[in-house]
Amino acid sequence: MQIKLAKSYGFCFGVKRAIKIAENTKDASTVGPLIHNNEEINRLQNNFNVNTLKDENEIEGVKRAIIRTHGITKNGLFTLEKSGAEIINATCPFVTKPQKICQKMSEEGYDVIIFGDKNHPEVKSVQSYAKNGAKVVLSVEDLKELKLGKKIAIVSQTTRKIEEFIKLTAYLVRNFKEVRVFNTICNATFENQDAAKELAIEADVMIIIGGKNSSNTKQLFSISKECCNDSFLIENEKELKKEWFENKKLCGITAGASTPDWIIEKVIGKISKIKV
Amino acid sequence: MQIKLAKSYGFCFGVKRAIKIAENTKDASTVGPLIHNNEEINRLQNNFNVNTLKDENEIEGVKRAIIRTHGITKNGLFTLEKSGAEIINATCPFVTKPQKICQKMSEEGYDVIIFGDKNHPEVKSVQSYAKNGAKVVLSVEDLKELKLGKKIAIVSQTTRKIEEFIKLTAYLVRNFKEVRVFNTICNATFENQDAAKELAIEADVMIIIGGKNSSNTKQLFSISKECCNDSFLIENEKELKKEWFENKKLCGITAGASTPDWIIEKVIGKISKIKV
Repeated sequence: MQIKLAKSYGFCFGVKRAIKIAENTKDASTVGPLIHNNEEINRLQNNFNVNTLKDENEIEGVKRAIIRTHGITKNGLFTLEKSGAEIINATCPFVTKPQKICQKMSEEGYDVIIFGDKNHPEVKSVQSYAKNGAKVVLSVEDLKELKLGKKIAIVSQTTRKIEEFIKLTAYLVRNFKEVRVFNTICNATFENQDAAKELAIEADVMIIIGGKNSSNTKQLFSISKECCNDSFLIENEKELKKEWFENKKLCGITAGASTPDWIIEKVIGKISKIKV
Repeated sequence: MQIKLAKSYGFCFGVKRAIKIAENTKDASTVGPLIHNNEEINRLQNNFNVNTLKDENEIEGVKRAIIRTHGITKNGLFTLEKSGAEIINATCPFVTKPQKICQKMSEEGYDVIIFGDKNHPEVKSVQSYAKNGAKVVLSVEDLKELKLGKKIAIVSQTTRKIEEFIKLTAYLVRNFKEVRVFNTICNATFENQDAAKELAIEADVMIIIGGKNSSNTKQLFSISKECCNDSFLIENEKELKKEWFENKKLCGITAGASTPDWIIEKVIGKISKIKV
Protein backbone atom coordinates (compact mmCIF):
# COMPACT_ATOMS: atom_id res chain seq x y z
CA MET A 1 0.00 0.00 0.00
CA GLN A 2 1.25 3.44 -0.93
CA ILE A 3 1.29 6.16 1.75
CA LYS A 4 0.97 9.80 0.70
CA LEU A 5 1.08 12.93 2.84
CA ALA A 6 -1.09 15.93 2.03
CA LYS A 7 0.79 18.76 0.29
CA SER A 8 0.17 20.90 3.36
CA TYR A 9 -0.56 19.57 6.87
CA GLY A 10 0.07 20.06 10.58
CA PHE A 11 1.93 22.99 12.05
CA CYS A 12 2.00 26.28 10.23
CA PHE A 13 5.21 28.21 9.61
CA GLY A 14 4.81 30.35 12.76
CA VAL A 15 4.33 27.38 15.11
CA LYS A 16 7.24 25.42 13.62
CA ARG A 17 9.43 28.50 14.07
CA ALA A 18 8.29 28.98 17.70
CA ILE A 19 9.04 25.35 18.60
CA LYS A 20 12.51 25.64 17.06
CA ILE A 21 13.10 28.81 19.09
CA ALA A 22 11.94 27.01 22.28
CA GLU A 23 14.22 24.05 21.57
CA ASN A 24 17.17 26.36 20.97
CA THR A 25 16.49 28.46 24.06
CA LYS A 26 16.22 25.74 26.77
CA ASP A 27 15.66 26.41 30.50
CA ALA A 28 13.02 29.01 29.64
CA SER A 29 9.31 29.63 30.21
CA THR A 30 6.72 30.39 27.57
CA VAL A 31 4.18 33.10 28.43
CA GLY A 32 1.02 31.06 27.99
CA PRO A 33 0.98 27.59 26.37
CA LEU A 34 3.08 27.54 23.18
CA ILE A 35 0.50 25.42 21.32
CA HIS A 36 -2.69 23.58 22.26
CA ASN A 37 -1.10 20.14 22.36
CA ASN A 38 -0.16 18.71 25.74
CA GLU A 39 2.12 15.98 24.40
CA GLU A 40 4.24 18.57 22.63
CA ILE A 41 4.32 20.85 25.69
CA ASN A 42 5.43 17.86 27.83
CA ARG A 43 8.15 17.03 25.31
CA LEU A 44 9.51 20.60 25.42
CA GLN A 45 9.48 20.47 29.23
CA ASN A 46 11.14 17.05 29.49
CA ASN A 47 13.74 17.46 26.74
CA PHE A 48 14.49 21.19 26.86
CA ASN A 49 13.29 22.30 30.31
CA VAL A 50 10.88 24.77 28.67
CA ASN A 51 8.07 25.44 31.13
CA THR A 52 4.70 27.11 30.64
CA LEU A 53 3.48 30.16 32.55
CA LYS A 54 -0.23 30.90 32.74
CA ASP A 55 0.48 34.49 31.74
CA GLU A 56 2.97 37.36 32.23
CA ASN A 57 1.93 37.79 35.87
CA GLU A 58 3.80 34.59 36.75
CA ILE A 59 7.08 36.02 35.44
CA GLU A 60 8.77 36.51 38.85
CA GLY A 61 11.95 34.48 39.14
CA VAL A 62 11.93 33.45 35.47
CA LYS A 63 15.27 33.94 33.69
CA ARG A 64 14.18 33.56 30.09
CA ALA A 65 10.68 34.27 28.80
CA ILE A 66 9.47 33.12 25.37
CA ILE A 67 6.66 35.14 23.79
CA ARG A 68 4.44 32.72 21.89
CA THR A 69 3.19 32.93 18.29
CA HIS A 70 0.03 34.94 19.19
CA GLY A 71 2.22 37.73 20.54
CA ILE A 72 1.64 39.62 23.75
CA THR A 73 -0.02 42.91 24.65
CA LYS A 74 2.12 46.02 25.06
CA ASN A 75 1.34 46.02 28.79
CA GLY A 76 2.25 42.35 29.03
CA LEU A 77 5.57 43.07 27.33
CA PHE A 78 6.16 45.90 29.78
CA THR A 79 5.60 43.51 32.71
CA LEU A 80 8.15 41.08 31.24
CA GLU A 81 10.69 43.86 30.67
CA LYS A 82 10.27 45.18 34.21
CA SER A 83 10.93 41.70 35.64
CA GLY A 84 14.45 41.72 34.22
CA ALA A 85 13.96 38.38 32.45
CA GLU A 86 15.65 37.84 29.09
CA ILE A 87 12.90 38.05 26.48
CA ILE A 88 12.86 35.74 23.46
CA ASN A 89 10.23 36.77 20.95
CA ALA A 90 8.58 33.91 19.07
CA THR A 91 5.66 36.03 17.88
CA CYS A 92 4.69 34.83 14.40
CA PRO A 93 5.85 37.37 11.79
CA PHE A 94 2.31 37.25 10.37
CA VAL A 95 1.14 38.65 13.74
CA THR A 96 3.97 41.16 14.13
CA LYS A 97 2.79 42.72 10.87
CA PRO A 98 -0.75 43.71 11.98
CA GLN A 99 0.75 44.88 15.31
CA LYS A 100 3.00 47.30 13.43
CA ILE A 101 0.20 48.38 11.07
CA CYS A 102 -2.06 49.04 14.06
CA GLN A 103 0.57 51.23 15.70
CA LYS A 104 1.50 53.16 12.55
CA MET A 105 -2.06 53.77 11.35
CA SER A 106 -3.28 54.94 14.75
CA GLU A 107 -0.29 57.29 14.99
CA GLU A 108 -1.21 58.70 11.58
CA GLY A 109 -4.73 59.47 12.77
CA TYR A 110 -6.62 56.58 11.19
CA ASP A 111 -9.45 54.85 13.03
CA VAL A 112 -8.15 51.28 13.19
CA ILE A 113 -10.52 48.32 12.86
CA ILE A 114 -9.51 44.72 13.56
CA PHE A 115 -11.60 41.94 12.05
CA GLY A 116 -11.47 39.16 14.61
CA ASP A 117 -12.48 37.73 17.97
CA LYS A 118 -11.87 40.29 20.71
CA ASN A 119 -11.12 37.53 23.25
CA HIS A 120 -8.44 35.83 21.14
CA PRO A 121 -4.87 36.43 22.43
CA GLU A 122 -3.65 37.37 18.94
CA VAL A 123 -6.34 40.04 18.56
CA LYS A 124 -5.67 41.37 22.06
CA SER A 125 -1.96 41.68 21.26
CA VAL A 126 -2.61 43.45 17.93
CA GLN A 127 -5.22 45.75 19.48
CA SER A 128 -2.86 46.84 22.25
CA TYR A 129 -0.57 48.45 19.66
CA ALA A 130 -3.15 51.04 18.56
CA LYS A 131 -2.49 54.42 20.11
CA ASN A 132 -6.07 55.29 21.02
CA GLY A 133 -7.55 51.80 20.97
CA ALA A 134 -8.53 49.84 17.88
CA LYS A 135 -12.09 48.61 17.37
CA VAL A 136 -12.63 44.86 17.05
CA VAL A 137 -15.52 43.61 14.90
CA LEU A 138 -16.81 40.27 13.64
CA SER A 139 -19.51 41.45 11.23
CA VAL A 140 -20.93 44.34 9.22
CA GLU A 141 -23.53 44.71 11.99
CA ASP A 142 -20.71 45.34 14.49
CA LEU A 143 -19.23 47.92 12.07
CA LYS A 144 -22.52 49.80 11.76
CA GLU A 145 -22.55 50.44 15.49
CA LEU A 146 -19.17 52.16 15.51
CA LYS A 147 -18.60 55.89 15.42
CA LEU A 148 -15.81 56.35 12.91
CA GLY A 149 -13.90 59.28 11.46
CA LYS A 150 -13.15 59.89 7.79
CA LYS A 151 -9.91 57.90 7.60
CA ILE A 152 -10.25 54.21 8.25
CA ALA A 153 -7.67 51.40 8.34
CA ILE A 154 -8.62 47.74 8.65
CA VAL A 155 -6.55 44.63 9.43
CA SER A 156 -7.60 41.05 10.05
CA GLN A 157 -6.90 38.33 12.58
CA THR A 158 -4.64 35.93 10.66
CA THR A 159 -7.07 32.98 10.72
CA ARG A 160 -10.20 34.71 9.41
CA LYS A 161 -11.87 33.93 6.09
CA ILE A 162 -11.20 36.32 3.21
CA GLU A 163 -14.86 36.33 2.08
CA GLU A 164 -15.96 37.80 5.42
CA PHE A 165 -13.12 40.33 5.35
CA ILE A 166 -14.22 41.49 1.90
CA LYS A 167 -17.79 42.04 3.15
CA LEU A 168 -16.43 44.39 5.82
CA THR A 169 -14.23 46.30 3.38
CA ALA A 170 -17.13 46.68 0.92
CA TYR A 171 -19.22 48.31 3.66
CA LEU A 172 -16.37 50.66 4.52
CA VAL A 173 -15.62 51.62 0.89
CA ARG A 174 -19.30 52.40 0.37
CA ASN A 175 -19.53 54.64 3.41
CA PHE A 176 -16.15 56.27 3.90
CA LYS A 177 -13.95 58.46 1.71
CA GLU A 178 -10.66 56.75 2.50
CA VAL A 179 -10.10 53.16 3.56
CA ARG A 180 -6.73 51.48 3.95
CA VAL A 181 -7.11 47.75 3.70
CA PHE A 182 -4.36 45.48 4.98
CA ASN A 183 -5.01 41.87 4.10
CA THR A 184 -3.22 40.22 7.03
CA ILE A 185 -4.97 36.88 6.63
CA CYS A 186 -2.60 33.89 6.67
CA ASN A 187 -3.63 31.07 4.37
CA ALA A 188 -2.01 28.21 6.34
CA THR A 189 -5.31 26.81 7.73
CA PHE A 190 -6.98 26.97 4.32
CA GLU A 191 -3.96 25.43 2.62
CA ASN A 192 -4.25 22.39 4.94
CA GLN A 193 -7.96 22.12 4.09
CA ASP A 194 -7.44 22.42 0.34
CA ALA A 195 -4.64 19.85 0.44
CA ALA A 196 -6.76 17.42 2.52
CA LYS A 197 -9.55 17.64 -0.05
CA GLU A 198 -7.19 17.12 -2.97
CA LEU A 199 -5.67 14.04 -1.35
CA ALA A 200 -9.00 12.59 -0.16
CA ILE A 201 -10.31 12.57 -3.76
CA GLU A 202 -7.39 10.39 -4.75
CA ALA A 203 -7.01 8.16 -1.66
CA ASP A 204 -8.76 4.87 -0.78
CA VAL A 205 -8.37 5.50 2.94
CA MET A 206 -7.62 8.77 4.80
CA ILE A 207 -6.01 9.12 8.24
CA ILE A 208 -6.47 12.49 9.94
CA ILE A 209 -4.20 12.98 12.96
CA GLY A 210 -5.11 15.50 15.65
CA GLY A 211 -7.00 16.23 18.86
CA LYS A 212 -10.58 14.93 18.80
CA ASN A 213 -11.69 18.21 20.37
CA SER A 214 -9.57 20.36 18.03
CA SER A 215 -11.90 22.36 15.79
CA ASN A 216 -9.50 22.60 12.87
CA THR A 217 -8.78 18.83 13.00
CA LYS A 218 -12.51 18.05 13.02
CA GLN A 219 -12.91 20.33 10.01
CA LEU A 220 -10.15 18.44 8.16
CA PHE A 221 -11.93 15.18 9.00
CA SER A 222 -15.26 16.40 7.71
CA ILE A 223 -13.72 17.72 4.46
CA SER A 224 -11.91 14.42 3.97
CA LYS A 225 -15.01 12.31 4.73
CA GLU A 226 -16.94 14.10 1.98
CA CYS A 227 -14.51 12.83 -0.66
CA CYS A 228 -13.32 9.58 0.90
CA ASN A 229 -15.82 7.58 2.95
CA ASP A 230 -13.04 5.57 4.65
CA SER A 231 -11.69 8.56 6.60
CA PHE A 232 -10.55 8.07 10.20
CA LEU A 233 -9.65 10.60 12.89
CA ILE A 234 -6.98 9.48 15.39
CA GLU A 235 -4.92 11.17 18.11
CA ASN A 236 -1.96 8.81 17.92
CA GLU A 237 -0.71 5.58 16.31
CA LYS A 238 -2.26 3.36 19.02
CA GLU A 239 -5.73 3.97 17.60
CA LEU A 240 -4.92 2.59 14.13
CA LYS A 241 -6.89 -0.53 13.12
CA LYS A 242 -5.58 -3.06 10.61
CA GLU A 243 -8.96 -3.63 8.93
CA TRP A 244 -9.12 0.01 7.77
CA PHE A 245 -6.37 -0.75 5.26
CA GLU A 246 -7.58 -4.07 3.82
CA ASN A 247 -7.66 -4.01 0.01
CA LYS A 248 -6.59 -0.37 -0.07
CA LYS A 249 -3.99 0.85 -2.53
CA LEU A 250 -3.43 4.46 -1.46
CA CYS A 251 -3.49 5.74 2.14
CA GLY A 252 -3.66 9.55 2.48
CA ILE A 253 -2.43 11.26 5.65
CA THR A 254 -3.02 14.74 6.99
CA ALA A 255 -2.83 16.37 10.43
CA GLY A 256 -4.39 19.25 12.35
CA ALA A 257 -2.60 22.52 13.02
CA SER A 258 -1.49 21.51 16.54
CA THR A 259 -0.16 18.04 15.66
CA PRO A 260 3.63 17.81 15.90
CA ASP A 261 5.62 16.03 13.21
CA TRP A 262 6.93 13.34 15.58
CA ILE A 263 3.37 12.09 16.23
CA ILE A 264 2.75 12.04 12.47
CA GLU A 265 5.98 10.11 11.94
CA LYS A 266 4.97 7.47 14.49
CA VAL A 267 1.65 7.02 12.68
CA ILE A 268 3.37 6.67 9.30
CA GLY A 269 5.83 4.19 10.80
CA LYS A 270 3.06 1.97 12.10
CA ILE A 271 0.94 2.11 8.93
CA SER A 272 3.93 1.21 6.78
CA LYS A 273 4.35 -2.01 8.78
CA ILE A 274 0.72 -3.07 8.30
CA LYS A 275 0.53 -5.89 5.78
CA VAL A 276 -2.55 -5.69 3.59
CA MET B 1 -52.70 72.01 -10.62
CA GLN B 2 -49.79 71.82 -8.23
CA ILE B 3 -46.23 71.93 -9.64
CA LYS B 4 -43.43 70.22 -7.74
CA LEU B 5 -39.71 70.11 -8.53
CA ALA B 6 -37.66 66.99 -7.77
CA LYS B 7 -35.54 67.29 -4.61
CA SER B 8 -32.47 67.09 -6.81
CA TYR B 9 -32.34 67.95 -10.52
CA GLY B 10 -30.29 69.58 -13.26
CA PHE B 11 -26.77 70.85 -12.83
CA CYS B 12 -24.55 69.35 -10.18
CA PHE B 13 -22.59 71.48 -7.72
CA GLY B 14 -19.45 71.50 -9.88
CA VAL B 15 -21.22 72.69 -13.04
CA LYS B 16 -23.17 75.41 -11.20
CA ARG B 17 -19.90 76.62 -9.70
CA ALA B 18 -18.14 76.63 -13.11
CA ILE B 19 -20.93 78.66 -14.73
CA LYS B 20 -20.79 81.18 -11.91
CA ILE B 21 -17.03 81.45 -12.39
CA ALA B 22 -17.51 81.96 -16.15
CA GLU B 23 -20.13 84.67 -15.59
CA ASN B 24 -17.86 86.45 -13.13
CA THR B 25 -14.80 86.22 -15.37
CA LYS B 26 -16.19 87.65 -18.65
CA ASP B 27 -14.15 88.14 -21.84
CA ALA B 28 -12.55 84.71 -21.38
CA SER B 29 -12.31 81.39 -23.19
CA THR B 30 -13.08 77.97 -21.75
CA VAL B 31 -10.66 75.19 -22.64
CA GLY B 32 -13.16 72.76 -24.20
CA PRO B 33 -16.95 73.23 -23.95
CA LEU B 34 -17.99 74.10 -20.39
CA ILE B 35 -21.06 71.85 -20.56
CA HIS B 36 -22.79 69.81 -23.25
CA ASN B 37 -25.62 72.29 -23.78
CA ASN B 38 -25.38 74.64 -26.73
CA GLU B 39 -28.06 77.06 -25.54
CA GLU B 40 -26.12 77.64 -22.31
CA ILE B 41 -22.81 78.03 -24.17
CA ASN B 42 -24.45 80.58 -26.49
CA ARG B 43 -25.83 82.46 -23.49
CA LEU B 44 -22.37 82.66 -21.90
CA GLN B 45 -20.95 83.91 -25.20
CA ASN B 46 -23.66 86.49 -25.84
CA ASN B 47 -24.04 87.83 -22.31
CA PHE B 48 -20.51 87.45 -20.91
CA ASN B 49 -18.28 87.16 -23.98
CA VAL B 50 -17.08 83.73 -22.79
CA ASN B 51 -15.90 81.80 -25.83
CA THR B 52 -15.09 78.13 -26.26
CA LEU B 53 -11.72 76.74 -27.41
CA LYS B 54 -11.53 73.23 -28.84
CA ASP B 55 -8.59 72.49 -26.55
CA GLU B 56 -5.45 74.05 -25.03
CA ASN B 57 -3.72 74.17 -28.44
CA GLU B 58 -5.98 77.08 -29.44
CA ILE B 59 -4.74 79.19 -26.54
CA GLU B 60 -2.65 81.65 -28.58
CA GLY B 61 -3.90 85.21 -28.19
CA VAL B 62 -6.33 84.31 -25.38
CA LYS B 63 -6.11 86.62 -22.34
CA ARG B 64 -8.08 84.57 -19.83
CA ALA B 65 -8.49 80.80 -19.94
CA ILE B 66 -11.09 78.96 -17.87
CA ILE B 67 -10.33 75.32 -17.02
CA ARG B 68 -13.62 73.43 -17.08
CA THR B 69 -15.08 71.07 -14.44
CA HIS B 70 -13.39 67.93 -15.85
CA GLY B 71 -9.99 69.51 -15.21
CA ILE B 72 -7.06 69.48 -17.59
CA THR B 73 -3.96 67.30 -18.00
CA LYS B 74 -0.68 68.46 -16.46
CA ASN B 75 0.72 68.95 -19.97
CA GLY B 76 -2.36 70.92 -20.97
CA LEU B 77 -1.91 73.15 -17.94
CA PHE B 78 1.74 73.65 -18.89
CA THR B 79 0.69 74.78 -22.38
CA LEU B 80 -1.73 77.32 -20.85
CA GLU B 81 0.92 78.61 -18.45
CA LYS B 82 3.49 78.97 -21.21
CA SER B 83 1.04 81.04 -23.28
CA GLY B 84 0.99 83.77 -20.63
CA ALA B 85 -2.82 83.72 -20.38
CA GLU B 86 -4.42 84.32 -17.00
CA ILE B 87 -5.71 80.94 -15.82
CA ILE B 88 -9.02 80.61 -14.00
CA ASN B 89 -9.49 77.15 -12.60
CA ALA B 90 -13.09 75.90 -12.59
CA THR B 91 -12.11 72.25 -12.08
CA CYS B 92 -14.75 70.60 -9.91
CA PRO B 93 -13.38 70.08 -6.37
CA PHE B 94 -14.56 66.47 -6.66
CA VAL B 95 -12.11 66.08 -9.56
CA THR B 96 -9.27 68.01 -7.93
CA LYS B 97 -9.36 65.45 -5.13
CA PRO B 98 -8.53 62.32 -7.21
CA GLN B 99 -5.90 64.40 -9.07
CA LYS B 100 -4.17 65.12 -5.76
CA ILE B 101 -4.56 61.52 -4.55
CA CYS B 102 -3.07 60.25 -7.82
CA GLN B 103 -0.06 62.53 -7.44
CA LYS B 104 0.54 61.76 -3.74
CA MET B 105 0.08 58.01 -3.99
CA SER B 106 2.34 57.66 -7.01
CA GLU B 107 4.99 59.75 -5.24
CA GLU B 108 4.74 57.39 -2.25
CA GLY B 109 5.40 54.39 -4.47
CA TYR B 110 1.88 53.04 -4.83
CA ASP B 111 0.65 51.58 -8.10
CA VAL B 112 -2.30 53.84 -8.86
CA ILE B 113 -5.44 52.48 -10.50
CA ILE B 114 -8.26 54.65 -11.84
CA PHE B 115 -11.69 53.09 -12.30
CA GLY B 116 -13.13 54.83 -15.33
CA ASP B 117 -13.19 55.44 -19.06
CA LYS B 118 -9.68 56.14 -20.33
CA ASN B 119 -11.02 58.43 -23.07
CA HIS B 120 -13.02 60.66 -20.72
CA PRO B 121 -11.44 64.12 -20.15
CA GLU B 122 -11.83 63.81 -16.37
CA VAL B 123 -9.97 60.48 -16.30
CA LYS B 124 -7.25 61.85 -18.59
CA SER B 125 -6.74 64.81 -16.29
CA VAL B 126 -6.61 62.64 -13.15
CA GLN B 127 -4.29 60.12 -14.80
CA SER B 128 -1.83 62.81 -15.85
CA TYR B 129 -1.10 63.58 -12.19
CA ALA B 130 0.40 60.12 -11.48
CA LYS B 131 4.19 60.24 -11.45
CA ASN B 132 4.79 57.05 -13.40
CA GLY B 133 1.43 56.74 -15.09
CA ALA B 134 -1.74 55.43 -13.49
CA LYS B 135 -3.57 52.43 -14.91
CA VAL B 136 -7.17 52.93 -16.06
CA VAL B 137 -9.60 50.00 -15.79
CA LEU B 138 -13.29 49.41 -16.33
CA SER B 139 -13.62 45.85 -15.00
CA VAL B 140 -12.04 43.08 -12.91
CA GLU B 141 -10.95 41.52 -16.21
CA ASP B 142 -8.96 44.68 -17.00
CA LEU B 143 -7.40 44.48 -13.51
CA LYS B 144 -6.31 40.88 -13.98
CA GLU B 145 -4.23 41.86 -16.97
CA LEU B 146 -2.17 44.43 -15.06
CA LYS B 147 1.23 43.81 -13.56
CA LEU B 148 1.03 45.38 -10.13
CA GLY B 149 3.37 45.78 -7.18
CA LYS B 150 2.51 45.10 -3.52
CA LYS B 151 1.12 48.52 -2.67
CA ILE B 152 -1.99 49.51 -4.56
CA ALA B 153 -4.10 52.68 -4.48
CA ILE B 154 -7.40 52.99 -6.31
CA VAL B 155 -9.59 56.01 -7.12
CA SER B 156 -12.72 56.31 -9.23
CA GLN B 157 -14.03 58.55 -11.98
CA THR B 158 -16.66 60.67 -10.19
CA THR B 159 -19.65 59.36 -12.19
CA ARG B 160 -19.07 55.62 -11.78
CA LYS B 161 -21.39 53.26 -9.89
CA ILE B 162 -20.31 52.26 -6.38
CA GLU B 163 -21.29 48.59 -6.90
CA GLU B 164 -18.76 48.24 -9.72
CA PHE B 165 -16.10 50.05 -7.71
CA ILE B 166 -16.62 47.61 -4.83
CA LYS B 167 -16.13 44.63 -7.17
CA LEU B 168 -12.73 46.01 -8.15
CA THR B 169 -11.69 46.66 -4.55
CA ALA B 170 -12.77 43.14 -3.51
CA TYR B 171 -10.50 41.67 -6.18
CA LEU B 172 -7.60 43.83 -5.01
CA VAL B 173 -8.11 43.07 -1.29
CA ARG B 174 -8.16 39.36 -2.10
CA ASN B 175 -4.92 39.47 -4.08
CA PHE B 176 -2.77 42.21 -2.58
CA LYS B 177 -1.37 42.84 0.89
CA GLU B 178 -2.10 46.55 1.01
CA VAL B 179 -4.82 48.44 -0.82
CA ARG B 180 -5.67 52.10 -0.33
CA VAL B 181 -9.20 52.75 -1.45
CA PHE B 182 -10.32 56.31 -2.16
CA ASN B 183 -14.03 56.50 -2.84
CA THR B 184 -14.06 59.55 -5.12
CA ILE B 185 -17.49 58.81 -6.57
CA CYS B 186 -19.83 61.82 -6.60
CA ASN B 187 -23.46 61.00 -5.96
CA ALA B 188 -24.99 63.91 -7.89
CA THR B 189 -26.18 61.80 -10.88
CA PHE B 190 -27.66 59.16 -8.60
CA GLU B 191 -29.30 61.78 -6.41
CA ASN B 192 -31.12 63.17 -9.47
CA GLN B 193 -32.27 59.65 -10.37
CA ASP B 194 -33.46 58.82 -6.86
CA ALA B 195 -35.30 62.13 -6.62
CA ALA B 196 -36.96 61.59 -10.04
CA LYS B 197 -38.23 58.21 -8.91
CA GLU B 198 -39.53 59.54 -5.61
CA LEU B 199 -41.42 62.35 -7.35
CA ALA B 200 -42.75 60.15 -10.19
CA ILE B 201 -44.42 57.82 -7.66
CA GLU B 202 -46.36 60.78 -6.29
CA ALA B 203 -47.06 62.79 -9.48
CA ASP B 204 -49.92 62.46 -12.00
CA VAL B 205 -47.79 63.83 -14.83
CA MET B 206 -43.98 64.14 -15.08
CA ILE B 207 -42.02 66.59 -17.25
CA ILE B 208 -38.36 65.73 -17.83
CA ILE B 209 -36.35 68.60 -19.32
CA GLY B 210 -33.11 67.92 -21.18
CA GLY B 211 -31.41 67.02 -24.45
CA LYS B 212 -33.16 64.19 -26.30
CA ASN B 213 -29.72 62.73 -27.06
CA SER B 214 -28.41 63.25 -23.50
CA SER B 215 -27.87 59.84 -21.93
CA ASN B 216 -28.48 60.97 -18.36
CA THR B 217 -31.72 62.77 -19.39
CA LYS B 218 -32.97 59.65 -21.17
CA GLN B 219 -32.20 57.65 -18.04
CA LEU B 220 -34.25 60.08 -15.93
CA PHE B 221 -37.12 59.73 -18.41
CA SER B 222 -37.03 55.94 -18.29
CA ILE B 223 -36.93 55.90 -14.46
CA SER B 224 -39.84 58.33 -14.36
CA LYS B 225 -41.90 56.42 -16.93
CA GLU B 226 -41.69 53.27 -14.80
CA CYS B 227 -43.55 54.96 -11.94
CA CYS B 228 -45.66 57.49 -13.83
CA ASN B 229 -47.01 56.51 -17.24
CA ASP B 230 -47.72 60.15 -18.17
CA SER B 231 -44.04 61.11 -18.36
CA PHE B 232 -42.84 63.45 -21.12
CA LEU B 233 -39.34 64.38 -22.25
CA ILE B 234 -38.92 67.93 -23.64
CA GLU B 235 -35.99 70.13 -24.59
CA ASN B 236 -37.78 73.45 -23.97
CA GLU B 237 -41.13 75.00 -23.09
CA LYS B 238 -42.26 75.15 -26.73
CA GLU B 239 -42.81 71.39 -26.76
CA LEU B 240 -45.36 71.40 -23.92
CA LYS B 241 -48.88 70.21 -24.86
CA LYS B 242 -51.97 71.32 -22.98
CA GLU B 243 -53.67 67.90 -23.11
CA TRP B 244 -50.90 66.31 -20.99
CA PHE B 245 -52.18 68.21 -17.99
CA GLU B 246 -55.94 67.63 -18.29
CA ASN B 247 -57.47 66.32 -15.06
CA LYS B 248 -54.04 66.19 -13.41
CA LYS B 249 -53.53 67.36 -9.84
CA LEU B 250 -49.78 67.15 -9.38
CA CYS B 251 -47.18 67.88 -12.06
CA GLY B 252 -43.63 66.73 -11.21
CA ILE B 253 -40.60 68.34 -12.89
CA THR B 254 -37.01 67.22 -13.18
CA ALA B 255 -34.10 68.00 -15.51
CA GLY B 256 -30.96 66.37 -16.87
CA ALA B 257 -27.47 67.24 -15.67
CA SER B 258 -26.79 69.67 -18.53
CA THR B 259 -30.07 71.59 -18.35
CA PRO B 260 -29.63 75.15 -17.08
CA ASP B 261 -32.03 76.61 -14.53
CA TRP B 262 -33.28 79.34 -16.87
CA ILE B 263 -34.70 76.73 -19.30
CA ILE B 264 -36.37 74.96 -16.35
CA GLU B 265 -37.84 78.27 -15.19
CA LYS B 266 -39.35 78.96 -18.62
CA VAL B 267 -40.99 75.52 -18.57
CA ILE B 268 -42.41 76.09 -15.09
CA GLY B 269 -43.67 79.52 -16.15
CA LYS B 270 -45.56 78.09 -19.11
CA ILE B 271 -47.03 75.12 -17.22
CA SER B 272 -48.29 77.38 -14.44
CA LYS B 273 -50.30 79.35 -16.99
CA ILE B 274 -52.00 76.24 -18.40
CA LYS B 275 -55.60 76.10 -17.21
CA VAL B 276 -56.78 72.55 -16.55
